[in-house]
Amino acid sequence: MSRYFMELAYRGTNYCGWQIQPNSVSVQEKLQQALTAILTQTIDVTGAGRTDAGVHAAYMVAHFDTDAFFNCSELTKRLNRFLPGDIVILSITEVDSESHSRFSAISRSYEYRITTKKNPFLLQLAHRVTYCPDFDAMNHAATHLLQHSDFTSFSKLHTDVKNNLCTITRSIWEPRGVEWIFRIEANRFLRNMVRAITGTLLDVGRGKITIEHFNEIIIAKDRSLAGTSAPAQGLYLVDIKYPDTIFKK
Amino acid sequence: MSRYFMELAYRGTNYCGWQIQPNSVSVQEKLQQALTAILTQTIDVTGAGRTDAGVHAAYMVAHFDTDAFFNCSELTKRLNRFLPGDIVILSITEVDSESHSRFSAISRSYEYRITTKKNPFLLQLAHRVTYCPDFDAMNHAATHLLQHSDFTSFSKLHTDVKNNLCTITRSIWEPRGVEWIFRIEANRFLRNMVRAITGTLLDVGRGKITIEHFNEIIIAKDRSLAGTSAPAQGLYLVDIKYPDTIFKK
Repeated sequence: MSRYFMELAYRGTNYCGWQIQPNSVSVQEKLQQALTAILTQTIDVTGAGRTDAGVHAAYMVAHFDTDAFFNCSELTKRLNRFLPGDIVILSITEVDSESHSRFSAISRSYEYRITTKKNPFLLQLAHRVTYCPDFDAMNHAATHLLQHSDFTSFSKLHTDVKNNLCTITRSIWEPRGVEWIFRIEANRFLRNMVRAITGTLLDVGRGKITIEHFNEIIIAKDRSLAGTSAPAQGLYLVDIKYPDTIFKK
Repeated sequence: MSRYFMELAYRGTNYCGWQIQPNSVSVQEKLQQALTAILTQTIDVTGAGRTDAGVHAAYMVAHFDTDAFFNCSELTKRLNRFLPGDIVILSITEVDSESHSRFSAISRSYEYRITTKKNPFLLQLAHRVTYCPDFDAMNHAATHLLQHSDFTSFSKLHTDVKNNLCTITRSIWEPRGVEWIFRIEANRFLRNMVRAITGTLLDVGRGKITIEHFNEIIIAKDRSLAGTSAPAQGLYLVDIKYPDTIFKK
């Protein structure tokens, strides 16, 4: 058996998310069906993480094991012809059998895209706000995330993780064209974390809470204090880093 | 009665095109319904031109007449709340009653967007080709368009226009991010013209015809010699110019 890492991207609009769920269409299921059909053997696909319904991935990594023989570049092409237009395989690479798309990852990056103007070409691809947020204040508040490690306040309740500790290494708002982008990088993310953080930062941006209050919410470790999660369509998984020894991009 | 110019944009994917047609949903119909509902009087909307099903407009102008009183900026906001997410009103301006969105226009510009890679975020927003076109050759061929004025070879047959003469003032392929963009500007365009030109330029790009052959197709004034029209989803109306005296952008 050999292990393969797959780099891919998808538009999340028409999926219930990454993970297989009964009676709905997931990205994981589409990939398993495609690989199983092409390699003519049952293939299980393990992702580097999960994305919720409607969340996009400009960059995602998943792995699978098989004893089938194939040319990686040829298989990439065949998969892209088989898969629908909203899922694309960027590459397939054989890796060490110890490498794991999820457990070997050392960091993940997300972007959250905001537009303040109605834009027909960003429909389902960015979150449109009808007010003009104070992005300077949001940027200031965002830097506070770098000074903390327990993000219980921004995690979904009752998840199966042992602790809510994350090391955030980047947290910044930047303009890009007609949009504002929140970029956040960490060794790990809790469920719903980026959307809860973004929603609470937007509360800072419209003056509902102060920058100090935002900092206090982090310290309180209480989900009920944070703001409403920002909607799925603005969120993009954009990068996953691995040690150079196991998987060189 | 006063006349108003409306600047707008729309994503054409879910429409049968600009023009009202029985049993299908058009952009013109959506605008008339919205204006009629908000101004509580029947409003007819006249567009600067037509776009076919699936064709987008990053910039379009339409006019309407009414004796209703309103604040243009307020009406713009109300229309944007009323209209679906894939149609946006950019502005409303009162103009001279002689001004006409179609007949007063002095030039129109289109873009045709091509991607050579499968990209989930350009689905319905660009035309994906599975080969690597020779954009240098296409650009060279495109310059020939500037030297001719009769474009019968790129017009739909049996249209109601008196002649097929157009003055093309810009015709160039340019890279933009992961895409290639064909930019074309003219005083007027014939039905299906940009898609027919783009499809024929793509024939040059994949070596099916030579640059010289492309030039001969123009000279022949025979639609049957040109290539297949490029698909609707790559085409964008991007600009319409008017004399400064009647409508200043």
